[in-house]
Amino acid sequence: MATSSGPKTALSETIIDVWQTAITSVESNKILIRGYPVDELMGRLSFGDAVYLLLVGDMPSPTVSRIMEALLVSSIDHGAIPPSTIAARTVAGTGAPLRTAAAAGVLALGSPLGGGGSIESCMRFLNEGLAVVGDWVSYDDAARRLLDQREGTGQLPPGYGHQIHKRDPRAARLMQLAFELELEGGHTQLARAVEQELTQRRTTTSHSGGTSLNSDGAIAAVSGDLGLDAETATLLFTISRVPGLVAHALEEQRRQEATRHIDPNQHVYDGPVERHLPDMSM
Amino acid sequence: MATSSGPKTALSETIIDVWQTAITSVESNKILIRGYPVDELMGRLSFGDAVYLLLVGDMPSPTVSRIMEALLVSSIDHGAIPPSTIAARTVAGTGAPLRTAAAAGVLALGSPLGGGGSIESCMRFLNEGLAVVGDWVSYDDAARRLLDQREGTGQLPPGYGHQIHKRDPRAARLMQLAFELELEGGHTQLARAVEQELTQRRTTTSHSGGTSLNSDGAIAAVSGDLGLDAETATLLFTISRVPGLVAHALEEQRRQEATRHIDPNQHVYDGPVERHLPDMSM
Amino acid sequence: MATSSGPKTALSETIIDVWQTAITSVESNKILIRGYPVDELMGRLSFGDAVYLLLVGDMPSPTVSRIMEALLVSSIDHGAIPPSTIAARTVAGTGAPLRTAAAAGVLALGSPLGGGGSIESCMRFLNEGLAVVGDWVSYDDAARRLLDQREGTGQLPPGYGHQIHKRDPRAARLMQLAFELELEGGHTQLARAVEQELTQRRTTTSHSGGTSLNSDGAIAAVSGDLGLDAETATLLFTISRVPGLVAHALEEQRRQEATRHIDPNQHVYDGPVERHLPDMSM
Amino acid sequence: MATSSGPKTALSETIIDVWQTAITSVESNKILIRGYPVDELMGRLSFGDAVYLLLVGDMPSPTVSRIMEALLVSSIDHGAIPPSTIAARTVAGTGAPLRTAAAAGVLALGSPLGGGGSIESCMRFLNEGLAVVGDWVSYDDAARRLLDQREGTGQLPPGYGHQIHKRDPRAARLMQLAFELELEGGHTQLARAVEQELTQRRTTTSHSGGTSLNSDGAIAAVSGDLGLDAETATLLFTISRVPGLVAHALEEQRRQEATRHIDPNQHVYDGPVERHLPDMSM
Repeated sequence: MATSSGPKTALSETIIDVWQTAITSVESNKILIRGYPVDELMGRLSFGDAVYLLLVGDMPSPTVSRIMEALLVSSIDHGAIPPSTIAARTVAGTGAPLRTAAAAGVLALGSPLGGGGSIESCMRFLNEGLAVVGDWVSYDDAARRLLDQREGTGQLPPGYGHQIHKRDPRAARLMQLAFELELEGGHTQLARAVEQELTQRRTTTSHSGGTSLNSDGAIAAVSGDLGLDAETATLLFTISRVPGLVAHALEEQRRQEATRHIDPNQHVYDGPVERHLPDMSM
Repeated sequence: MATSSGPKTALSETIIDVWQTAITSVESNKILIRGYPVDELMGRLSFGDAVYLLLVGDMPSPTVSRIMEALLVSSIDHGAIPPSTIAARTVAGTGAPLRTAAAAGVLALGSPLGGGGSIESCMRFLNEGLAVVGDWVSYDDAARRLLDQREGTGQLPPGYGHQIHKRDPRAARLMQLAFELELEGGHTQLARAVEQELTQRRTTTSHSGGTSLNSDGAIAAVSGDLGLDAETATLLFTISRVPGLVAHALEEQRRQEATRHIDPNQHVYDGPVERHLPDMSM
Repeated sequence: MATSSGPKTALSETIIDVWQTAITSVESNKILIRGYPVDELMGRLSFGDAVYLLLVGDMPSPTVSRIMEALLVSSIDHGAIPPSTIAARTVAGTGAPLRTAAAAGVLALGSPLGGGGSIESCMRFLNEGLAVVGDWVSYDDAARRLLDQREGTGQLPPGYGHQIHKRDPRAARLMQLAFELELEGGHTQLARAVEQELTQRRTTTSHSGGTSLNSDGAIAAVSGDLGLDAETATLLFTISRVPGLVAHALEEQRRQEATRHIDPNQHVYDGPVERHLPDMSM
Repeated sequence: MATSSGPKTALSETIIDVWQTAITSVESNKILIRGYPVDELMGRLSFGDAVYLLLVGDMPSPTVSRIMEALLVSSIDHGAIPPSTIAARTVAGTGAPLRTAAAAGVLALGSPLGGGGSIESCMRFLNEGLAVVGDWVSYDDAARRLLDQREGTGQLPPGYGHQIHKRDPRAARLMQLAFELELEGGHTQLARAVEQELTQRRTTTSHSGGTSLNSDGAIAAVSGDLGLDAETATLLFTISRVPGLVAHALEEQRRQEATRHIDPNQHVYDGPVERHLPDMSM
């Protein structure tokens, strides 16, 4: 087979395009994350704070730090039902490397109907309402307008209602923390007003499931008030769920028969019975 | 086209296989992570602790909590050079959803030559040495034996040496924390003995780069002393790097021209200049 | 640790949801692909025809078969430049399984700016024009209207122009085959009219690259005339590129140094010099 | 925030590393696949032949072409049961892009227990036997030795037996074609000898399923005789299954309710009833 011979190296005479990145500087023996030496952060900064620093570019304040940790904890796992979990378990069951299984799970997150998939649409929904809130329009007014516009569609707004939870405990707790930490802004206040308006209207409707704010909705509201955009908020959700995907993939390989047929509906939980933290503050 | 008609539903008369999971219980309005209500964890537990709880099954002690956060922070990003980062940026540059880009990055982690890829082999290496440590064999003895066996291969043991860092700041800090927190066990002590022996032998060799413990090696050593297996330690690395992959994918889409040709060598860091934390303890 | 005990099996008394699929029937010793026994197809049907059968549901006619093979061949590889190829090579370079590398490459296909990414938008563009073609509006008229609407945007319509190819050889050949095989319909005729109109207008503009129909555009046009929707046409592209991703991943692991920094611009081709088929018909 | 300013471009004075690839040459208006202009291949070469050309580097002979098409057709789909199919459907059900769903499916292929996962181990098994075949050792002798060595493990050799098919129709047909096309070599002959020996021994054992050569085994045997290595053979399987993954992902999004819980056991086939090709030769 004839082959064209090519040079192994070439003295470049052209202008090379240099590109910029503002995330991490790596030199010999020195790694700066957004300017901070990583070894200085280690032992002083929590992983949650480091996530914030990496994505936002600066350190969180103490209250922002606490709500961020809570947000990341809230979505760390949701049992064996979500498509992302089933995808991760299905791939893990073939004996694939577990990181590969986790990656397959990530591919099932964030799409319109996947886990975290309504964070973005809920933030758009809230921003639409906030655009009209002002001197003459209260949060309650805006909530009514938003719901009037959707009247007759038969659909709850994005971020409201949940197949399993009539009252999503993650959403309730995240909203409570935003209040306690005095981090409430327009997004959370409008989200609450919409929830109340939905409850009132619900008495006359027959929606079977709940209508209260769900986890995606609370993440959207709290992230919006922190100044995060919808895409970044969805990525926080993605980051938070990876440990859950990893844990399920690991359990699948260690506890289940390989390449079994996984019926998502037929699992039972046999882990520790309900238990509680000793009274502690972080 | 003729079609075979099938029943829409069937009354199952067979015994259904029920399968068990011990990770998360999800009932209406109640989510228990390893037994703990998630809303109770929110605001009280850090994300790092929740990662530990999820993977290990129980709460970390305060000192284990601190080393785990440090471990997770240590690997959160390593700049624009690693293959995982380039894979994530390359996919992000096509306009793909950022979670998809992050998943592509995860696929470049953990393989023998990818990021975190020598955690597993280093832990095996250390376990091999620990198997002979005893009344008559000190850590130093074991280190010498391990290195004698590799003599002549011309290769450093897994977990030692780094292309960029002569002294990997992440490894040094993680080992220091293990010492300060009194979490040192056999793995870290043997890892240190191997490092010292390598330094002594090195004066007579001509290895261009450093021979000191690298980040993968320190993670292997510390994880080993915490009782984690090699696979779980590698998964901790995977979890810790996802925020970095996400940050790079986000920056790629927002700052760079789409589908550019990314030359990993031609980037410059233009983020914040070196800065430091105010004196603080977590 | 207390654990809740769960039943291992349960006699289901509920109605089980049965779901339907019309793709492949698998019984003991019998596999029917869209109704055809797979062992009967083997040796009689080409892989390209089987792809068509699987996606469309029926056998292609002889002329459709030929254009489909040509379409699949056209996009099988485009060298070392596309982001999908770089992503696959980058992951392969870490020592990851090659199927994993190919999957990472697939994640860089089909997005708006990735390979095959304008098939969908081009088909929408053509459909928009076809909606006005009729007794009083010729393909040329429709082409002029479509381009008039885009006047001033400074952008070529989707499916036209290519960074490297002034005249994309794949598009030219695919359109020629559609003509020879008498498979031309509205989409290809309108695509051609737009190309001609663009050429005429181009004399007065200064677009540096070419303005002729590119590979994505030709796939959109031909697929449209075959009655395929835009999503299916894009998936045909995805299927066709997988062998290319696999070939690059394989070459990366066998020929290149592991985890090298891949500069997409600095490759040279050293394969066989240009060669030609003996005169043959398929 | 202080930022370090960096140069936008730099005149490179260093020697640039140029790297080689022998797959595809892309110049303006010219694309050479392994030396052949792609537009010349279009309309003359089948997709299956192009896959062979791309992976192997040269054109297949007419008989090799036929067996390759048969091999690629054999594995194009295996219904709704394989983990890869379930992974693809699960991701598709979230509304993710279908290429993303296909990528998730690919991640479930090729692992030891995934689809195509015993091609590699079967080829090693056959090579082990072929190493002893010679003047004094027949294929039957080698088969006996191989099985004697595994006696008592209770496990069939890789590439033999199938959960569903007592006699895998794909394997039988592929072996028959290898015989008819006079492509039989050591691998297929030894594979057949092992199958016969297994059948004889089986009368005295109680293995519930079949013991005959399965699809993975036949692919390994035929590929081995074609001179392909185990990794390339497994990649051929990967390539061949992508259309199946795509078809299932597409059907999932178009026919099923989003994010449903997919029980792999509860599907029924409602596609075309069994039908047959008119007598034809490719």
